[in-house]
Amino acid sequence: MKRQGFDALVALTPDNVTYTAGVLIPSHVVNRFRRTISILAGDNFSAQIVVNVEENLAREFSRFSNIHSYNQFTENPSDLLADLLEDAGLSSGRIAIELDFMPAMDYVRLIERLPQATFDHARDIYFHVRMTKTDEEIERLTEVGVMTETVIAEILDGIHPGETEKEVGARIANKMLRLGADHVRYHVGSGVRSGITNCDPTDKVIEKNDVLRIEVLGDYNNYRSNVTRTAVVGKPTQEQKDIWAVLIEAKEKCESILRPGIQIPDLYQTYVNACRSGGIEPTLNFLGHGIGLTIHEEPYITDTRKYPLGPNMTHTMEPLFMIPGKMGFHVEDMYRITNSGFSRITGELLPNHDLIEIEV
Amino acid sequence: MKRQGFDALVALTPDNVTYTAGVLIPSHVVNRFRRTISILAGDNFSAQIVVNVEENLAREFSRFSNIHSYNQFTENPSDLLADLLEDAGLSSGRIAIELDFMPAMDYVRLIERLPQATFDHARDIYFHVRMTKTDEEIERLTEVGVMTETVIAEILDGIHPGETEKEVGARIANKMLRLGADHVRYHVGSGVRSGITNCDPTDKVIEKNDVLRIEVLGDYNNYRSNVTRTAVVGKPTQEQKDIWAVLIEAKEKCESILRPGIQIPDLYQTYVNACRSGGIEPTLNFLGHGIGLTIHEEPYITDTRKYPLGPNMTHTMEPLFMIPGKMGFHVEDMYRITNSGFSRITGELLPNHDLIEIEV
Repeated sequence: MKRQGFDALVALTPDNVTYTAGVLIPSHVVNRFRRTISILAGDNFSAQIVVNVEENLAREFSRFSNIHSYNQFTENPSDLLADLLEDAGLSSGRIAIELDFMPAMDYVRLIERLPQATFDHARDIYFHVRMTKTDEEIERLTEVGVMTETVIAEILDGIHPGETEKEVGARIANKMLRLGADHVRYHVGSGVRSGITNCDPTDKVIEKNDVLRIEVLGDYNNYRSNVTRTAVVGKPTQEQKDIWAVLIEAKEKCESILRPGIQIPDLYQTYVNACRSGGIEPTLNFLGHGIGLTIHEEPYITDTRKYPLGPNMTHTMEPLFMIPGKMGFHVEDMYRITNSGFSRITGELLPNHDLIEIEV
Repeated sequence: MKRQGFDALVALTPDNVTYTAGVLIPSHVVNRFRRTISILAGDNFSAQIVVNVEENLAREFSRFSNIHSYNQFTENPSDLLADLLEDAGLSSGRIAIELDFMPAMDYVRLIERLPQATFDHARDIYFHVRMTKTDEEIERLTEVGVMTETVIAEILDGIHPGETEKEVGARIANKMLRLGADHVRYHVGSGVRSGITNCDPTDKVIEKNDVLRIEVLGDYNNYRSNVTRTAVVGKPTQEQKDIWAVLIEAKEKCESILRPGIQIPDLYQTYVNACRSGGIEPTLNFLGHGIGLTIHEEPYITDTRKYPLGPNMTHTMEPLFMIPGKMGFHVEDMYRITNSGFSRITGELLPNHDLIEIEV
C-alpha cells in the first residue's frame, strides 16, 4: 500500500475483508444488502464496518478492535466509511479501494462526501499479497484439497447406474460435511450433460456408457478446494480414450515445466499447443486459476498474465474439452509451486492417467 | 419501467437476471469476476450478456435469444453493455440500472461510454414486481418451505447429546439434498453459541441442557426457504420458558392482524410492543423479510417500509432474542398473504407454541 503511494487500503469483498480481519462475517456472503468493510490507514489506523446484526460476532472474532456498525435500513455504510477516513486524516488522501466490487451507489456517495480524496483500484494490491501463500494457508489448502479428493475417490467407487445426479450430489455433500467441510458445492454431469461446463446436478438418471464428470468445490476454515474427475460408466469408446489421452498428455507436458520462474503465458501456450497437436481445441481460455480464500484468484493461468510463477503460489490446472450436446472431459488438480518445482496438493490419491472406468 | 419514464431496464444481480432470463447462470454466483447482465429496452429490444464460458448454457436455457458473450480476461462487459444500449438507440436514453450492485468501475466505464445517457436506480422496479408472487412462484416457495420444515422436524427428532453441531449440519444437508434441494445453508448453534445470530456450525459437542437453535435456508428451483426452530436438550428452565412465551405471544399477536392492507410499520410495532411488555427488547430491527428468489427481499417487516402488505406477498416472521454469551431464542416461519388474511407456507408440521424439548 505504502510502496504504491496509497494512504489507505479499503476492502469490501468477503475474501479481502476475511484476509484482513481474520474472520468471515456470514451474512456478508448471503445477503447483498449487507456490507462489511475493512480500513487500513497509515501505521496506526484500522477499522472494520459491519451491519449491526453482526456486531457481536465481529467484536468477538475480528482482528480489528475498532468495530463500527450501521443500521441496514436507515444508514449508508459509505457515510460511515467517509467518517472513518476523515477521522484518519484522509479527507484529501489517496485511497486504494475495491472499485471492482464496491457498488456504484456507494462509490458515488463516497466521492460526494470526500471530494478532495482520490480513489484507485485496491485489486492488485490484494491479489499480489494473497498470491503467495503462508505455511498456514498451504496447510489449510492441503486439508481441504485432500478431503475433496478422498471424497471423489469414494464416490466414484460407489457409483451405480440408476442413481440420479442429485443423489450423487447429496452423497458428496454428506461426505464432505462429515469430514468437516464448512460448505460444499459440486457439479455432477452425466451423459450429454457432462458437456455443460458448470453443470448443477439434476434428476437425470446415470446410465451405462455415460461419461460422468464430477467437480467438487470445498470450503474448510475459509480455504477452498477445486478437484474434478471424469469417468465412464462401463468401458470407454476409442474416441473417448483418444480425447482423454490428449488432455493428459497436455497436462503432463505442463507439469514437466512447472516450476518457479516459468512465465505464465508460456505454461498456458504449452497447454494449448499440446491440445492442438492432439487435434482438439481447448474449451476454456485458461488452463487453471489461483486458489485460496476464493475458488478463482490470481494467478489465472492464461496468456494475459505476463508474469512468472513463484514459490508458494497455489493454483489449479484443469484441462477441459467439451463437445456440447454430446459429452465433456475435464480433470482438475491443485498444485503448489515449491522452491525448485512443484508439489501436488491433490492428484496422488486418485490417479487419472487413464480415463476412470466405473464397473457395471 | 415505462410508467416511471425509463427507456431501458438493466439487471446485474443473480436474482434479477434470473427473474428476467428464467435461468441462473452458475458461475455468476460463485465467481465475482464474471458478470451477467440482462437488458430490456422499449418493446422490442432485449439481450443478455454472459461470460464466454457460460455462453452455451445461456443459449440453451435463457428466455433471451439475443445472447452476447465476453472474454473475462480481455474485455470489459460494460463496453458490451454500452454497445447494446447504443444498438437499442439509447445513447441519450434514461436507463434504470442496478446501481446498488453494479461495481463502481463498471459504472465509471459505462458513463464514459454513454455520456449523454442518464442512469437511475433499478432496485425499486424489480422489488416492486417481485414482491407479489405468481401462483408458480408460490408453488415453488411452498415446495422448498415444506421440504425444509420436514427436515428440521426429522433432525430435531434424532438429536442426541454427544453429536457435534457440524454432524447435525451434515445430516441437514443430506436430507435436504436427498429431497431434491439444489443447495442448502444452515446455522446450528448450541449452548452459548445459540446466542450468535448467524452461527455457522462448529465441532462443539451438543450437551444436555443446551439451547439448540437450527436455521435452514433451502434453495430449490431457484426459490428459497428460511425456517428456524429453537429447542432445549432436556427440560427448559423457567427463564427459558418465560422468554419463549414472550416471543410466541408476540408472534401470535402479529398473526392475529396479518392481512392485506395492514401497514408494515404497524405490524412491526405490534411485535416490538409485545416483546417490550413481556420484558424483552427484540435483538433485530426487523420482524421478518420477503422471501422468493433471494432469502432477503422486500417486504422487509420494519418501521422503515411505509406501505401495506398485499395479496400474494410472501415473507417470514422471525421473533428473535439473543443473550450474547449465554443463549438465544428464535422461531421463523414463512407466510403468504391471501385475499383476506394469510396462509402458512411453514409452521403446520412442526408446531412451536411451546419450546421444543429433546428427550435425553
